[in-house]
Amino acid sequence: MDGSLTFGIDVGGTKLLGVALDATGAVVAEERTATPVPHAAAGVAPGTAGEILDAVEAMARQLARVTGTAAGALGVGVPGLVDEDGVLRFAPNLPGGQGLAIAQRMSERLGGIAVVVDNDATCAAVAEWTAGAAAGASHAVVLTLGTGIGGGIVAGGAVDRGAHGFAGEVGHMVVDPHGPRCPCGKRGCWERYASGTGLGRLARDAANAGRLPEVVRLAGGDPEAVRGEHVTAAAMAGDPAAVAVLGELAWWLALGLTNLAAALDPERFVLGGGLMTAGSVLLEPLRQAFADMVEGGSARPPVAIVPAALGERAGAVGAALRARAARSRAGGGS
Amino acid sequence: MDGSLTFGIDVGGTKLLGVALDATGAVVAEERTATPVPHAAAGVAPGTAGEILDAVEAMARQLARVTGTAAGALGVGVPGLVDEDGVLRFAPNLPGGQGLAIAQRMSERLGGIAVVVDNDATCAAVAEWTAGAAAGASHAVVLTLGTGIGGGIVAGGAVDRGAHGFAGEVGHMVVDPHGPRCPCGKRGCWERYASGTGLGRLARDAANAGRLPEVVRLAGGDPEAVRGEHVTAAAMAGDPAAVAVLGELAWWLALGLTNLAAALDPERFVLGGGLMTAGSVLLEPLRQAFADMVEGGSARPPVAIVPAALGERAGAVGAALRARAARSRAGGGS
Repeated sequence: MDGSLTFGIDVGGTKLLGVALDATGAVVAEERTATPVPHAAAGVAPGTAGEILDAVEAMARQLARVTGTAAGALGVGVPGLVDEDGVLRFAPNLPGGQGLAIAQRMSERLGGIAVVVDNDATCAAVAEWTAGAAAGASHAVVLTLGTGIGGGIVAGGAVDRGAHGFAGEVGHMVVDPHGPRCPCGKRGCWERYASGTGLGRLARDAANAGRLPEVVRLAGGDPEAVRGEHVTAAAMAGDPAAVAVLGELAWWLALGLTNLAAALDPERFVLGGGLMTAGSVLLEPLRQAFADMVEGGSARPPVAIVPAALGERAGAVGAALRARAARSRAGGGS
Repeated sequence: MDGSLTFGIDVGGTKLLGVALDATGAVVAEERTATPVPHAAAGVAPGTAGEILDAVEAMARQLARVTGTAAGALGVGVPGLVDEDGVLRFAPNLPGGQGLAIAQRMSERLGGIAVVVDNDATCAAVAEWTAGAAAGASHAVVLTLGTGIGGGIVAGGAVDRGAHGFAGEVGHMVVDPHGPRCPCGKRGCWERYASGTGLGRLARDAANAGRLPEVVRLAGGDPEAVRGEHVTAAAMAGDPAAVAVLGELAWWLALGLTNLAAALDPERFVLGGGLMTAGSVLLEPLRQAFADMVEGGSARPPVAIVPAALGERAGAVGAALRARAARSRAGGGS
């Protein structure tokens, strides 16, 4: 059965997650490894071009070992702007990989198999659209709410990568030009507000103003140590002050969703990523704020806002699906 | 040759513009009428449902008279959210038409011919994509910069109307939640800054601060009488203070274009509408500001920012093209 599997690898900030899909699309193996030190400690993906390639190659070989078969094709999801040739063109969160021809270099390292590289959030959208919460939608936006905000766009019944493969970078839409500076170079990008990082910032502001005693206690007593997870945990336990901060986050999240609804008119938003562990304590105020703000209000059909179905493996599964589709188009591999 | 022509009518704020297209898509007649008083005086489109229908019917009959033939099909472009059945669902700039089943009602008035109704800016995008400055693009955004900002999106090689026909309402993307209130109910919509109305506001702020003496002179001496046209005229004549205000406008326009580039990754922006009469005195600072701000900067292929080709008739031509396409799909009309 050599070559009957497709591997997918998601290169994340703290770990690489790899999956092997069989010919039906089922996940037959799943592996994780921490990103190489010292980069894992810094919370960023492996830093040098060599480390990135080494880490992906090691994961591909690990998947081959546990499945007892070499991959027929490999898909890789990475953060940043990836062009149609699998070159990482711009990557503030993976600086060592900038300009790296990942697809070509990995194919060379893995015996010439087909390697497809795409943006991690676009991969997640492919997975959610193929076999998750965006399935069947003609128009949808799939968002990954983590350290930043990644996005993938479904338009006209397909995942739309844009003219150069860069579509869906919605976290860098500016929602307040006077806002905090973003690593991308601009000010007030949406992900400064409506991501896990944004929640931490909103929460530290509230904590420093004395409005979050229970959350500060969870964070060990130091308002500056407050992170998004502390707020989510306290809100889920019923702390009204934490619920209020999640309400602020929900407002900023809704603002960006209404912007996307105005431009794209999706029938559905699919939200995944670490922030969504908050569940209904975030989703309920989000849906309310969206309904209050969206242009046309009740004159337009309601837009569903639903949680993603595939969890943290969505990026890896989508990368594998992308590789499998490319291989089919090329005529079935070797 | 009865029925061989397709008519298109653009219902604008101060006039209705109608065209007749022959089977090759050539414009064989063009007619204009002012919108009915007292509404023309207020600068808004005809106000009551009856007036809207009367005005469109009168224009259709005028086109029939001058061409000597009844239309085989009619397309109508209107401002607002138009659903797939030709019902105007939300229309802050055409309030009397809200909820009106324009397609059905016009078909009844015109002997049962096929009538297609769509958003005016989407119609303009159809025209620019079919026979104008967006022709051949796989991904483009076509913007009409007038009193507000209308938009149409080309994705995957076709004009994309979204899940419900509402895509492209980009003027109501919020770019500053602390900004001025918009008639749509939100604050800081992009069209509060980067439209003709926005230019007027930026200019009056500058005039009241004493920074626009030449423009104030053109406006008759009263800073509060300054409008966008005065700034454009002064800037084209070389007034540095007016050029500086157009630079501010260009910055806000670029901000929205970078947001759209992040989400949609178009290869081209096509800009039409009254604001574009400014020409290079606006386009040059706009292109510079966009290049400075777009995510990825020089790491991504350049995105063209070009003027629209079809001028003020784009909406009417696009409405006719929409009607002709619908008629072909239905099997060639009567």
